[in-house]
Amino acid sequence: MQEETGDMARPVEPGHFSTCESRLDKHIAGLCSVDFPVAVVLPAGGSGERTGLLTPKQFCTFLNRPLISYTIQTFERVPWIQSIVVVVAKERLDLMMDIIHRFHHRNVLVVHGGSTRHRSIFNGVRALGEGEDGTARVKPKVVIIHDAVRPFVEEDFLLKITMAAKEQGAAGAIRPLVSTVIATTLEGYLDHSLERTKYRASEMPQGFIYDVIYQAYQRCSESDFEFGTECLHLALQYCGTNAKLIEGPPTLWKVTYKRDLAAAESIVKETLSQSACVVTGGSAQATELANALQRSMSALDMEVDVISDLIGDNAKSLSKEWNFIQVSVNSSCLSEVGKTLSALEEADRALLHPVVIIWVYLNVSENDLSGNEPMGGEPAAMMELATGAKLGNILVYGIQLHHSKETTLWGRSVERVAQMSCALIRDRSPALTGQLLQA
Amino acid sequence: MQEETGDMARPVEPGHFSTCESRLDKHIAGLCSVDFPVAVVLPAGGSGERTGLLTPKQFCTFLNRPLISYTIQTFERVPWIQSIVVVVAKERLDLMMDIIHRFHHRNVLVVHGGSTRHRSIFNGVRALGEGEDGTARVKPKVVIIHDAVRPFVEEDFLLKITMAAKEQGAAGAIRPLVSTVIATTLEGYLDHSLERTKYRASEMPQGFIYDVIYQAYQRCSESDFEFGTECLHLALQYCGTNAKLIEGPPTLWKVTYKRDLAAAESIVKETLSQSACVVTGGSAQATELANALQRSMSALDMEVDVISDLIGDNAKSLSKEWNFIQVSVNSSCLSEVGKTLSALEEADRALLHPVVIIWVYLNVSENDLSGNEPMGGEPAAMMELATGAKLGNILVYGIQLHHSKETTLWGRSVERVAQMSCALIRDRSPALTGQLLQA
Repeated sequence: MQEETGDMARPVEPGHFSTCESRLDKHIAGLCSVDFPVAVVLPAGGSGERTGLLTPKQFCTFLNRPLISYTIQTFERVPWIQSIVVVVAKERLDLMMDIIHRFHHRNVLVVHGGSTRHRSIFNGVRALGEGEDGTARVKPKVVIIHDAVRPFVEEDFLLKITMAAKEQGAAGAIRPLVSTVIATTLEGYLDHSLERTKYRASEMPQGFIYDVIYQAYQRCSESDFEFGTECLHLALQYCGTNAKLIEGPPTLWKVTYKRDLAAAESIVKETLSQSACVVTGGSAQATELANALQRSMSALDMEVDVISDLIGDNAKSLSKEWNFIQVSVNSSCLSEVGKTLSALEEADRALLHPVVIIWVYLNVSENDLSGNEPMGGEPAAMMELATGAKLGNILVYGIQLHHSKETTLWGRSVERVAQMSCALIRDRSPALTGQLLQA
Repeated sequence: MQEETGDMARPVEPGHFSTCESRLDKHIAGLCSVDFPVAVVLPAGGSGERTGLLTPKQFCTFLNRPLISYTIQTFERVPWIQSIVVVVAKERLDLMMDIIHRFHHRNVLVVHGGSTRHRSIFNGVRALGEGEDGTARVKPKVVIIHDAVRPFVEEDFLLKITMAAKEQGAAGAIRPLVSTVIATTLEGYLDHSLERTKYRASEMPQGFIYDVIYQAYQRCSESDFEFGTECLHLALQYCGTNAKLIEGPPTLWKVTYKRDLAAAESIVKETLSQSACVVTGGSAQATELANALQRSMSALDMEVDVISDLIGDNAKSLSKEWNFIQVSVNSSCLSEVGKTLSALEEADRALLHPVVIIWVYLNVSENDLSGNEPMGGEPAAMMELATGAKLGNILVYGIQLHHSKETTLWGRSVERVAQMSCALIRDRSPALTGQLLQA
């Protein structure tokens, strides 16, 4: 069974996802050195026993999205990769198709796996060359084999593997050994330890000229299919193709245990929390606050941009992976937050990641210095707005602060808004949306 | 240089830290099968290049505490371990002594490291047998060697290693290989891949009869000191002691990269977020709310205990690794939270981990159903109390809810309190302390 998703509509995120046409443009313009077709096979049939979880790890979810979708997205961002084949166990086909539809993945072909890793990879490789009915497809020149559970591989490393594979026939990522490797006796005693410097861990991605990996699988034995672990080894043994080994970065790491899911979530959260855009509405007081926030939040390692609105040229902020801080001065309505929210929803910005909007309400009236003045129906309206937004993967929080003429007090309030904003953006806690905090 | 901390005062945390006397008691009572002296050497001289951080990873901090303190605590919790030697680089001696004082670690001897891992371990082993001035100490029977960056090793596994070391002379933890190991040619091509099933990763802890490891180091060559990586190998080569290898759990894992710190933090946060104690003050309405919270929070995987106060027998809740939820009904003062806070401070509960107190304020007045009624000076008083508490590593948050006679509305409010409480306890965000949230 094969299902294609190539003609699905998906939002264009400039700088992140290129359309097919722009891929071709880049090739023609020579901006990209890969001028031959490249495809990816992602074996995702594993059962994930080592995580200690019931769900195989590639389907475990963080920030509302399964791990495998992060990996697919990584490849979709690479303009010179034409297609992605995901190989899943038969019983996960529906789940996989659902993921592809929900997150608008495209150019993804789903095929079902075999009983072992090598059989699954071969199914994926074969699907690139022929349709389900045996009709021939246009084969890629190079096929990259990667794991669904290594979501953080970078484009420049994929390029290295691809170019080396094209030149040498096969290439694979290696990493230094983290532990000493030892051989054990049958009785469970130390036999000998290997000299660490002479050995490497073989990792993914690996790249092959299509015909090399295809022939290696056609020629290899049942025992290879059953017990083998190393594609590079098959290429050497059955095609005489000696793989070029390339030292990869730590980001190649494989999500293996439950703790790795926490680490992956933390990496994604950190990536999503690097920048915020403060929308001021243009008033002098809001701009002053925005500039102060920019200084404080920069000191907390967040890149902050200040703009007056999201119209015209400023609308391009919507397509970046930014969080939003909407400043309102003495305005008792939430319409400005509503506008930012609608703009984000229209731009489909929260499809892949939750987006944070923080409403900062600046109270400049004279009569209350404690900052605890209730604001009519604001908290209730805020909660209602946030509850709706959360359904669309947008997390809305509020912070209220009182304008003080006393410089020290004012500085302290701004500092608190900065700290709370950074914490809200980093934690992305769905349970706290709709709250109006006090700075 | 050696500094001892054996006679430092430290708080007794029943169930976690035993005093010296209770250790002896256990031996005498035969509750523990280890009836011989055991010591630990923790080499902590590494530079931590692989984390990509400036601070060596063993000194990196999460939840206000450096990683090495978590590892030391793990060994302090084991009643049959007499002493811990930490080996650090000369330039980190002061930092290490400061950590020991700040977190009240005891029975810890700090010695400075050598230029390589083996020289550092030997320094640690030697310090167990003789004082700085060359005077003899009472040597332990078995010495466990562990890494400062593996904080989650469990007592039962330490016991296995210790008993096997006593019987065989040496024992070490092994784990299955996560990646295929390959040998590379000088030119960077694949030479051959190892058959995964025949090899294991050698991990820590390892255990040795003191005289075995001491003699192995005395007899080994300068080249071993310089380039060797495997203590088990030295025991075999220089003392003819063949190590028993024991398959260890995934928790032996070593914090190597920056992402591992995030994983470690996540594991500790999860451990700290497993249980909460709701203190009701005894009123019927508070008890009703507490029972409802108990049901909702249990469904969110949190163990919840309901008690009326922290006096008498209930005071034992203070010594458990629990978080606290203090329910107040119509009371406009924070004194109940203040009492719980003082009790926790007196019990020194926040010495090693931040503790969370959530003040749940239940408003049962009839006149406002929106739940947004301001409560006099509460928010300001709350912020002041929380700011003070934070200095002592106690995180105070508030949640206000309105009592509704309408069952659905009430159920929804309780559900929100439960969700927010779980999120606040899990995230432990210092920036959000002192806030009074609305349920």
